[in-house]
Amino acid sequence: MNGKVYLVGAGPGDPELLTLKALKVLKRADVVLHDELVGAEILAQVPSTARIHNVGKRCGGKSTSQREINSLLIQYALLGLQVVRLKGGDPFIFGRGGEEMQALREAGIEVEVVPGITAALGAAAAIQIPLTYREICSDNWPDAIASDVTVVVYMPGRDYLATAQKLRAAGLSAETPCAIVSRVGSHDERAHVTSIGELPSAPRLSAPSLLVVGEVVRFAQHRSLREQFSQFIARNFEASQSELIKTTESGSQEQAQ
Amino acid sequence: MNGKVYLVGAGPGDPELLTLKALKVLKRADVVLHDELVGAEILAQVPSTARIHNVGKRCGGKSTSQREINSLLIQYALLGLQVVRLKGGDPFIFGRGGEEMQALREAGIEVEVVPGITAALGAAAAIQIPLTYREICSDNWPDAIASDVTVVVYMPGRDYLATAQKLRAAGLSAETPCAIVSRVGSHDERAHVTSIGELPSAPRLSAPSLLVVGEVVRFAQHRSLREQFSQFIARNFEASQSELIKTTESGSQEQAQ
Repeated sequence: MNGKVYLVGAGPGDPELLTLKALKVLKRADVVLHDELVGAEILAQVPSTARIHNVGKRCGGKSTSQREINSLLIQYALLGLQVVRLKGGDPFIFGRGGEEMQALREAGIEVEVVPGITAALGAAAAIQIPLTYREICSDNWPDAIASDVTVVVYMPGRDYLATAQKLRAAGLSAETPCAIVSRVGSHDERAHVTSIGELPSAPRLSAPSLLVVGEVVRFAQHRSLREQFSQFIARNFEASQSELIKTTESGSQEQAQ
Repeated sequence: MNGKVYLVGAGPGDPELLTLKALKVLKRADVVLHDELVGAEILAQVPSTARIHNVGKRCGGKSTSQREINSLLIQYALLGLQVVRLKGGDPFIFGRGGEEMQALREAGIEVEVVPGITAALGAAAAIQIPLTYREICSDNWPDAIASDVTVVVYMPGRDYLATAQKLRAAGLSAETPCAIVSRVGSHDERAHVTSIGELPSAPRLSAPSLLVVGEVVRFAQHRSLREQFSQFIARNFEASQSELIKTTESGSQEQAQ
């Protein structure tokens, strides 16, 4: 049986800013591949029987290439081991976690992502700068959103039509993929993948929810999406996830024209 | 002796996404004031001797006003208690943590901020959407940055002149405050507050560092800033933190003209 790879965020540096889940996963690891920025106090949590690789870049020194890292992760997982890829901050904010996830998926390896405190949040807490402040920061939508930006809308509410119109007004195309994610971390966590053009007809998932908008949404995988896709397939025809996205796109283009 | 208030992020909902620090602080709390979104499994970590207030808004129901919340936090702290203000996600992303911090500062109460996994990171990990992806997401600077937006630059490097020029080119004024924060969470964590106009002459703090830009930087407080301000005062004249910011501003204006 194949092992599993955990892409884990170690937070900004302070070992106390590890999550309980990250600590649990580290304590069960057979192998840990970590970045340079992950400190000794955090690595001390790894069992002494585990193998630890520093795959980070030292200033000017030799670093392991992304290809080698991907290959190590796959090889260890194929040996049936529990592999932790430990990154500073959050694994999905810079740091190429997405590329590693994609390589593992292509190799048929199960991946689980454990989020971490990203450096921006760590720094804001440390020097007491609120990143949003009601009287200072705008709640307005930006006038323009570039197509290669990922946008996360907190508490999008239930008026998906208005939200889709604002996103279109900011310059995003109707085909831009988006995902509604509901009740994250609870037993009834759910997701629905669609496009801006199709968003108004998407199911209203329970609050709290948020909306992720951008090309990266094409990577989405979640147990509740299997349900969405199987319903879609039953209604239409056999389609892979990527074909679904294409179909959604052409549907949206028609709607937008 | 006054107590202390901890503004704590509980993360997106899953109790395993609490940080070790949040758990430690909760276990020592005398009083906990929490939002509606914080679940029972997390509150079960609070000692049975502690007083727990739900100050959140129930859909359509009665909620405690922000003024009442601030007043409760201050009153409990003045009784010498360890008070935890527990918020869903991160305390400084929406959720009015900044306003509470400001009210506590004005009342002379010590505040510590414990960051949490914000909903965007929790959702991205849950449905496996990398929020940045090298080949899809732009590393370019946005063409325009609104003055009421907070910008965080990861790994700004040492060429502060180039960074300042890019921020100015995106439309931010030379007087916009910014802070360099270095080695967050380590024993030699340091911060330096300046303005975009003065950034090129700021000290190069050790990597890893990041740059926070925006009006909210005026709230910054850190032990290393006391050093910065006392040096500044020694060099110039007696100035409060707010006066320093004004001084920096007028200095920058001259430079920009």
